[in-house]
Amino acid sequence: MTYCVGLRLDHGLVFMSDTRTNAGVDNFATSRKMFTWSVPGERMITVMTAGNLATTQSMISLLEERSKAAEERDPSILRQETMFQVARLVGATLKEVIADSSGNGQDAADQFGASVIVGGQIKGGQPTIFLIYPQGNFIEVTDDTPFFQIGETKYGKPILVRAYDQTMGFEETVKLLLVSFDSTVKSNLSVAPPFDLQVYPADSFDASRTKRIEENDPIYQTISDGWGDALKTAFQQLPSYPL
Amino acid sequence: MTYCVGLRLDHGLVFMSDTRTNAGVDNFATSRKMFTWSVPGERMITVMTAGNLATTQSMISLLEERSKAAEERDPSILRQETMFQVARLVGATLKEVIADSSGNGQDAADQFGASVIVGGQIKGGQPTIFLIYPQGNFIEVTDDTPFFQIGETKYGKPILVRAYDQTMGFEETVKLLLVSFDSTVKSNLSVAPPFDLQVYPADSFDASRTKRIEENDPIYQTISDGWGDALKTAFQQLPSYPL
Repeated sequence: MTYCVGLRLDHGLVFMSDTRTNAGVDNFATSRKMFTWSVPGERMITVMTAGNLATTQSMISLLEERSKAAEERDPSILRQETMFQVARLVGATLKEVIADSSGNGQDAADQFGASVIVGGQIKGGQPTIFLIYPQGNFIEVTDDTPFFQIGETKYGKPILVRAYDQTMGFEETVKLLLVSFDSTVKSNLSVAPPFDLQVYPADSFDASRTKRIEENDPIYQTISDGWGDALKTAFQQLPSYPL
Repeated sequence: MTYCVGLRLDHGLVFMSDTRTNAGVDNFATSRKMFTWSVPGERMITVMTAGNLATTQSMISLLEERSKAAEERDPSILRQETMFQVARLVGATLKEVIADSSGNGQDAADQFGASVIVGGQIKGGQPTIFLIYPQGNFIEVTDDTPFFQIGETKYGKPILVRAYDQTMGFEETVKLLLVSFDSTVKSNLSVAPPFDLQVYPADSFDASRTKRIEENDPIYQTISDGWGDALKTAFQQLPSYPL
């Protein structure tokens, strides 16, 4: 599996992805699932992927135009005029890869399927995030649905729903994501650190605020250990159910 | 979907189930998923079901021997000598119903499948709980795995894992289950109150401690509302992630 979250705040965007890939519990590895294209001062685009690894790697390679010689590459993702057009390009590429992998188009989405989160900002537009389905169509974040999850979304959702606030600062948001990721890691062996993090302040057009958070990161450890205790304390404060 | 939890404590057993059944979001109803057989002073057996409603209702009817005239019924579930034998009987009944529903046995478990939690105590034995698979085989709770969930298990699992303690009292345990159920209800439309509750003190052989907790139950409302605030407070106590 996989766990990725893309989250829109008043101040900008935050992306986090895990790095575990597996084919059965006896065959797992670490693989990057977050990819960024940027032109400083002009655009920042981040893509996160979940699903069949052959599909998602192939999609990323096509977006990077690796089918061309290195000197001829001019990725069209860097020439789209709006984030909506970027989402259409990524959706079309994803759909094409899935169709290529399978003779019968109907089953392809199940067998070679993948989901993608695409977010970022292009000069002249607002920062935004899209969730792209294996069929190539997509939805955009709104005030009502300000974040998207892909992969193993269930364990980590309750805390996101309860604690997310669009006015949160970046550091607080990363803490929230680490709690959500930690709950997922504790419940699903196919999600694991290190986590890739990207923080994007609105209108910065700067892709440099990235970090890989390792399993032994002391702050992550503190949050992970502290969350168990904090949950127990929170739980004890509630009234018992009289029988 | 469905959400049921059966939990073993030092003091006894606690069972909780939701009551929503649905075939698509446009077709839902309230249906009991918790069933109890007892002989006061001698045995208490509770069954909770998740999965295809035709399968689980048929299984319960067979266990109650409704294929016989009322006066001839003598349910064999009341004549098994141990909880292990009860689990075998329920497993065999479940497997039989699923096989009956389908011509090709291989696909049956997917299409007409169901899972069952069976717990209780028979004089001479300990209180225990079994999780029964659609294939009719089963596993039993242990000190390492002291509870079973069926149905929509993911949203409500993290708090169970973090806050469960085998020495907990019954009232504390019901509070824990209500938090777990509330997290699930908030994330999955196919799980909903009222909740059926059964508390079984070890060696009581008494099935009378049952309650239906309605959506507007004031204590449930307090726990539900309070948990959101308590989570936020717990979250604020953790250190932020410095960027």
